[in-house]
Order: sequence, then structure tokens, then C-alpha cells
Amino acid sequence: MSIKKIPESTISRLFVYLRELSELSKLNIRTISSSELGERVNLNDAQVRKDLGYFGQFGISGSGYDINELKAALEKILGKDKTWNVAVIGAGHLGSALITYPGFQQHGLNVVTAFDADVKKIGKRFGGITIQPAGELPKAVKEKKIAIGIIAVPAKDAQEVANSLVKSGVECILNFAPTVLSVPENVKVNNVDLSRALETFSYFLVNPALSGRVNKAVSGKK
Amino acid sequence: MSIKKIPESTISRLFVYLRELSELSKLNIRTISSSELGERVNLNDAQVRKDLGYFGQFGISGSGYDINELKAALEKILGKDKTWNVAVIGAGHLGSALITYPGFQQHGLNVVTAFDADVKKIGKRFGGITIQPAGELPKAVKEKKIAIGIIAVPAKDAQEVANSLVKSGVECILNFAPTVLSVPENVKVNNVDLSRALETFSYFLVNPALSGRVNKAVSGKK
Repeated sequence: MSIKKIPESTISRLFVYLRELSELSKLNIRTISSSELGERVNLNDAQVRKDLGYFGQFGISGSGYDINELKAALEKILGKDKTWNVAVIGAGHLGSALITYPGFQQHGLNVVTAFDADVKKIGKRFGGITIQPAGELPKAVKEKKIAIGIIAVPAKDAQEVANSLVKSGVECILNFAPTVLSVPENVKVNNVDLSRALETFSYFLVNPALSGRVNKAVSGKK
Repeated sequence: MSIKKIPESTISRLFVYLRELSELSKLNIRTISSSELGERVNLNDAQVRKDLGYFGQFGISGSGYDINELKAALEKILGKDKTWNVAVIGAGHLGSALITYPGFQQHGLNVVTAFDADVKKIGKRFGGITIQPAGELPKAVKEKKIAIGIIAVPAKDAQEVANSLVKSGVECILNFAPTVLSVPENVKVNNVDLSRALETFSYFLVNPALSGRVNKAVSGKK
């Protein structure tokens, strides 16, 4: 398989397909067509075939995809069969929530260390992790084989933390700070905007007829 | 415009289109075709036309969409021209991070009140919000016209909080607790799994050839 530059939105959709295939596999369903799979995730069949097509030939024309085979292939492509060590930088409200977040481990993501620049926070413990001084980051990245850094510091400090992560050899950064980070090309940054999780609500709130909802808009202008 | 049941993934993509149109509008670009818009968000033109088609006729065949017109229409459809009041329930690490999260307000979402069942947390202040006793929730929902409730309590308490929100008349719930909530049909629940924000990293980490990255997998089996 030759490695091409795959659009990120395709990668995101592969994770969606994988979740769907995992559900189907649990139900002991064996095969699925691209249009059936697309319908389950509300994409047309051409999009499904295009996304999967980046990675070679899956499925047999006319009989669809073998669900377990496609699931295993996607897990391998997406690195879901491996585990990765994660460091959290910033031990404030959000940082401490992320250190103790129960959902990471089941996705092969282990928070193994955390840092803060504030001496009052150093030495504090959150769910088995003791906060280290920020200066210890480079050493820890090497010793603990950190693959992913999570930035949970205020916006004004985020670039400095990113620089330190990059210099230490971390190439994947999850950024919760509301600022755009400048990093070298080989480093991948995902920015998290928690308001995205709320945004679809406004559609449901302005369409009360969909469910008999009451219109609770506070004002028509924000 | 007749109101039809629109797939949620379509709604999510409308927000993606809207963000793209806002960027284009800032650059003073006036029109865009469905295939150009699709290309920018990595969807094919048929998908773009299908998604927009739910809401009537946009654009003129051959000359594409008027960007400002489509942007205004989507803002109205999606309720982005309104503001909504939000309550946070649970004032632990995550709850307090959400109460003070700076990104909500710019999306028309105002956290106006917060609750906890723990007497040690009641009365604490986070960014101008004083934590109220959980029992005050129904009254506050009415008085403060709460449209959205954010659940940031442990999984074992989440259903009880959801019941209280629903009983008080809240119909949009953002759930951070790792549990499936049971709610009436007219109530919309969005579940947040923060590990989703990290999941695409594993693909980049297992494809070091994409960028000369070092393979830092801790183990091949999780």
C-alpha cells in the first residue's frame, strides 16, 4: 500500500465507519454494502467508496464489505490496535479534569504524566498522577515515551508550552487553549472547541415544531 | 418552508459549511459552487446539494451560491443569530472548567448558573458564577430561562440530574458523563467523548512516513 496524503476529514470519517462496523460486528452481522454503511452514517455511497478507496480495494463488487475484515483493516490503518502515552500540561480546572478523564484509556490513550509551571500545583495528585514542574517535560517525554501532549494552559502560555513539546520531540498536540499555535510541518495539532458540542442545539431550539419544544431564545441578537 | 426531520449529521455539516462561508465572506469572496464548497470541506458536490436541499432552493444553477445570502440563511436556520442560557450541573474539575470556559459566549451560549449536590461546593464561585444547591435547579430553569443543561457529574449521578433537568423543562442536554441517558423523545442529548479529539492522532502516529515521524507506540496490543 503506498502512503498518500489523506484528507483529515476522510480520516475522521474512517473512525465513524469503524464505530459503526464495531456495532454491526457485535450484532453478528457479516456483510454490508457501501450504500447501507453510508445510510447508517448519513453519507452517500460514493463518499464511502472514495474514503475507503484511499487505502486500496475493500469488498467484492455486488456482495459488499466483510464487516470483520474491514473493521480489522481500519483498526490497523488508524492505529487503533496500539496504545500511546499522553502528557497533560496545565493542572487547572480543565487540566485536572483531563488527567482524571475516564474515557481516554479505553481508546488506548494513557495519561502517564502531567506538568504545571505554578509551584502551588506541583506535587498535587490527581487520580494517581503527581504534577511535575514544567522544566521536567523534556526528560519525561523521552523517559516515558510521550507521543501526545495535551495543552490545558491559558491562551497566553500555550505557544511556549507547544514550543517545549515540539523541542522535546512530541509530534501530536491536543490544544484546549483558544489560540492558534504555530508549529513545524511535521507536528499535528488538533484544536478543541467545546462549544462545538453544543452548537447543534441552537438548530433544535429554533425549530420547536420538530418536537413541540418551547422557544427559549433569550434574545434575537447576540 | 416545511419542517422535515433532518438527519443530525446534515445539521452538523451545515455548521461546517457556515464556518467555511464565514471565512470566505471575510475574504470578500462573493459566490461559490457546490463543488468548490464541497472541496473545501472534503465532501462531494452531491452531498453539499443534498444537505442544503433540505431547506429549499439555494443558489442559481450555473452561477453557484451567493456566499453572504447562504451564510445569512444558514445562520437563521441554525439559530446562530440568537443567544441561549446554559446551566452547568456538577462543579468538580470538569464542571468548573466548563463554567469558566471562554469559548461558549462567542457562540451565543451564556452559562448563567451552576449547581452541585455537595454542600462543600455550594457557595463557591467560578468566574462570576456562584454554585447553587442542586435542589434549586427547577426554580432557576424557569427564572433564568435555561435552554441547555450541561451534565458534568459522575456517571452514577447523571441520570438523576437528567431527570431533574427534563422535569424542569430543559430540552437540550450536553452530557459529559460516560453513561447513556434515558430521556423523553422531545429531549435532545449530545454526549461528549473527549477522546474523540485525540483519536485521529493514532493514524498519524502509525504513519510516520507521512512526515518523518518516529513510531512511539507503547505496545501493539491495548
